Amino acid sequence: MDSILCIGLDFGTDSVRAVLARTDNGDIIATSVHEYARWSRGDYCDPAAMQFRQHPLDYLEGTEAVVRGVMAGIDPARVVGIGIDTTGSTPCAVNRDGTPLALTPEFADDPDAMFILWKDHTAIAEAERINDYAHSWGGPDYTLYEGGTYSSEWFWSKLLHVLRRNPQLRRAACSFVEHCDWLCAELAGQRDPLTISRSRCAAGHKAMWHESWGGLPADEFLAGVDPLLAGWRCRISPQSQTADLPVGTLCPQWAARLGLGKHVVIAGGMIDCHAGAVGAGIRANELVKVFGTSTCDILVSKNVPTCVRGICGQVDGSVVPGMIGLEAGQAAFGDVYAWFRRLLSYEAPTSLSKLDKEAAALPINPQGPLAMDWFNGRRSPDANPHLSGAIIGLNLGTTPAMIFRALVEATCCGARAIIERFISEGIAVNALLATGGIARKSPFVMQTCADILNRPIRVAASDQVCALGGAMFAAVAAGVYPDTETAMAHMSPGFDITYTPRPEFVAQYDQLYQRYQRYAEILENAAMADR
Amino acid sequence: MDSILCIGLDFGTDSVRAVLARTDNGDIIATSVHEYARWSRGDYCDPAAMQFRQHPLDYLEGTEAVVRGVMAGIDPARVVGIGIDTTGSTPCAVNRDGTPLALTPEFADDPDAMFILWKDHTAIAEAERINDYAHSWGGPDYTLYEGGTYSSEWFWSKLLHVLRRNPQLRRAACSFVEHCDWLCAELAGQRDPLTISRSRCAAGHKAMWHESWGGLPADEFLAGVDPLLAGWRCRISPQSQTADLPVGTLCPQWAARLGLGKHVVIAGGMIDCHAGAVGAGIRANELVKVFGTSTCDILVSKNVPTCVRGICGQVDGSVVPGMIGLEAGQAAFGDVYAWFRRLLSYEAPTSLSKLDKEAAALPINPQGPLAMDWFNGRRSPDANPHLSGAIIGLNLGTTPAMIFRALVEATCCGARAIIERFISEGIAVNALLATGGIARKSPFVMQTCADILNRPIRVAASDQVCALGGAMFAAVAAGVYPDTETAMAHMSPGFDITYTPRPEFVAQYDQLYQRYQRYAEILENAAMADR
Repeated sequence: MDSILCIGLDFGTDSVRAVLARTDNGDIIATSVHEYARWSRGDYCDPAAMQFRQHPLDYLEGTEAVVRGVMAGIDPARVVGIGIDTTGSTPCAVNRDGTPLALTPEFADDPDAMFILWKDHTAIAEAERINDYAHSWGGPDYTLYEGGTYSSEWFWSKLLHVLRRNPQLRRAACSFVEHCDWLCAELAGQRDPLTISRSRCAAGHKAMWHESWGGLPADEFLAGVDPLLAGWRCRISPQSQTADLPVGTLCPQWAARLGLGKHVVIAGGMIDCHAGAVGAGIRANELVKVFGTSTCDILVSKNVPTCVRGICGQVDGSVVPGMIGLEAGQAAFGDVYAWFRRLLSYEAPTSLSKLDKEAAALPINPQGPLAMDWFNGRRSPDANPHLSGAIIGLNLGTTPAMIFRALVEATCCGARAIIERFISEGIAVNALLATGGIARKSPFVMQTCADILNRPIRVAASDQVCALGGAMFAAVAAGVYPDTETAMAHMSPGFDITYTPRPEFVAQYDQLYQRYQRYAEILENAAMADR
Repeated sequence: MDSILCIGLDFGTDSVRAVLARTDNGDIIATSVHEYARWSRGDYCDPAAMQFRQHPLDYLEGTEAVVRGVMAGIDPARVVGIGIDTTGSTPCAVNRDGTPLALTPEFADDPDAMFILWKDHTAIAEAERINDYAHSWGGPDYTLYEGGTYSSEWFWSKLLHVLRRNPQLRRAACSFVEHCDWLCAELAGQRDPLTISRSRCAAGHKAMWHESWGGLPADEFLAGVDPLLAGWRCRISPQSQTADLPVGTLCPQWAARLGLGKHVVIAGGMIDCHAGAVGAGIRANELVKVFGTSTCDILVSKNVPTCVRGICGQVDGSVVPGMIGLEAGQAAFGDVYAWFRRLLSYEAPTSLSKLDKEAAALPINPQGPLAMDWFNGRRSPDANPHLSGAIIGLNLGTTPAMIFRALVEATCCGARAIIERFISEGIAVNALLATGGIARKSPFVMQTCADILNRPIRVAASDQVCALGGAMFAAVAAGVYPDTETAMAHMSPGFDITYTPRPEFVAQYDQLYQRYQRYAEILENAAMADR
């Protein structure tokens, strides 16, 4: 029997992936991946300044390539929906007809006119201003549902940053659009940036959108943060929508370009890890952790305190419609390992698998080298972009494997700090589900994580849960299923690996974690005094 | 005219070097270097445990090779003296006839029976015990002239360590002899370890020898530190001698082995950097800094407070007879760079010159990566073997060159901390003279050091000042000159490079140094609380 099919498009940091999934059982019958050409050359980026920008053509070319890739030999009539998830907050300035300024001749080479990738940290001063003002202006504290700290990685910080530093862009920009929203609108042929659908997930977690204050923060607040933000509230649609609702159907141009029918429904946009949590089949009070270059930690619950201290955000329907979605995360995880691999590749390329093997062979040494995993600042708990990575306890005999092991342990300690915060804030964490490249490929990292967390980790039986989550939302938006839970029940891949904490190591790792926490406090205090 | 010649033998960490010097003008007419074969293979060492041992045959084979090397084609009758300097404290257990236990069949492969190299840090617990007891036992504080802290790198710590852990050695050892003393006695054919000459320099700086308490610490004190040390005081000659005095003349066996006359005078043994200070022509209140794998900082003065706080030692005649010699040092300097080079050579060898060039091209960044140079603990000021290296302020864009630059800056900040301590203890530092491999080969390091110290650095016009200092002492011991000052006046090489602080960078480096000091305090406190 030929099942109805949906496409999930997952725009990651380095590449876009499409999956073509059966809606009856979730089986993925085709996959296609496209690396961003400009990004892979380092165009528009300045890593030393933490400036990371992506060109919209990387996305558009990628969309065509991967959809054509999965559709080879498939009857297009079988496809009823497309669901899209992207990194986020990854916004871009657009002009009056919704075109990213990077696609206009005037801004063709201007990094500020590109998509500002989630991990770009150029807007630290702007985030600080937003936090200071929100905590002191006398009106609602708009950071309330963002854990109390607005991040330099998020929408308004980035918008204000480019407005402040780029007068040309200030004149040309009509609106500011998240990657996932822009792409959904683009495929649906919706060109008016003032009315296009805004994802609940991106708006709620990244732009301070909340129902209780009628959507986005008040214009009075934004203008108080900086007069440059005056009037920007009404340049963005006041409503946001959950991803199970359709944005529209494929416009004729994109239907032709992709070789699909115009009836194909576009589901609401999502941020990647939120889609991944759905793809993994998240249930109430389960934590889905996406172990990637960074981590995204998603928990859904029906019972959540008004304000969860130090966690990035809590938004009704941001993951599973009908539940509060909570997002936390580590600003760098695999990126820390990749940094070290790059460092060691000074003369000749080396591989993480070699380091992994050597590090795994070392004994646990709670008195040995100790690292802080804040190489990209700290996202959760208690966002602080001023923190940086550290490696202490070095001596003349310290080897690459020892440092790599310390880096792995540090990222796992960072993971534990997040779970401990959920629990201390009164939110039960009944299970830990893992997805992402590292979860499937790095037994050493995952076993270390299970040992340090002292809880089992179940790994989703697919390395494509984000894209699969997109396909599930597409199935709901296209009417194949009545709601997200039903789609998850039919289409989730289940779990095929479980890492169980090894009792003989738990006490030593607990000692290591306590040391990590002591140094975390010392180094955070020092960093803040250092400014 | 054929000048009278002296040989200087300089036993460094990796190799031994001989120079054949004219006594009339100090010109070096031949040089020979021999790498230690067993050491270069890593035999008997365990870097992860900071265990560094050297086999006596490396020294004996080296002596023959380099003396034969410099004497090729030279009339042996012209040579009147040999002066020897070695690393220190580098002691070895010997039997009743002065033979290092490593040269007896029973101990042929026992690392504890080898020379325990200066940088070996296995005796940390023993140093702690010595300090605790010296500060509390009620008798004289024997650490008084060692800066108040006895080091794990020194004579009694190392002796106690091997006595404690090696019962076999405990039964076989008759005495414990510094490398420089053993070699002088060996060449002079003196076999009784109870009466052989002990160098003032090694005894005073490393074994708590001081005239005011009649030589070595009282037996009562040593037995109180550990009963295993009872009786050891009288197994070591009570007197020490300055290096300008002869130990004896070449014994027939060594005269034959080296191809030299039996009239050749052996001068008193020295520790290498003390000999180097003389070789560089040190004058009162000048600091000679040997920039090598570690640094040794030697200052001589006629006016010194009773106790100089936090400096390794102050000993009458340990450098220039007639003046107080003060020794300080950084436990790792070039070793820190070498560690980083090894780290980056994970896949393929890299060179320091490449790193040097890239690091020099970077701007000063007082907010950038910051390192602590304590990769081998801290020697001065305020010896503390429990400290370790650290690199903070890392982010995903941190490159090898940035880290290398931070490491260079950290070692230079460590140098500044020593000079500031001399001055705050009331000892003028009128000039800074540099010797050692790094002083002559690394303009980037030396310029950074001049900038951070904000004082000019003059580099001795020879890379062989240690061996040359040995030759000068040989000239005095053999009667060519009446005293060390006269020998220095005739034989010192002068200075050929001066690094002058660049005024435009001094303020920024000062800011960097203040940050280094803030983190030094924070990390030292954390490390001590961590134990």
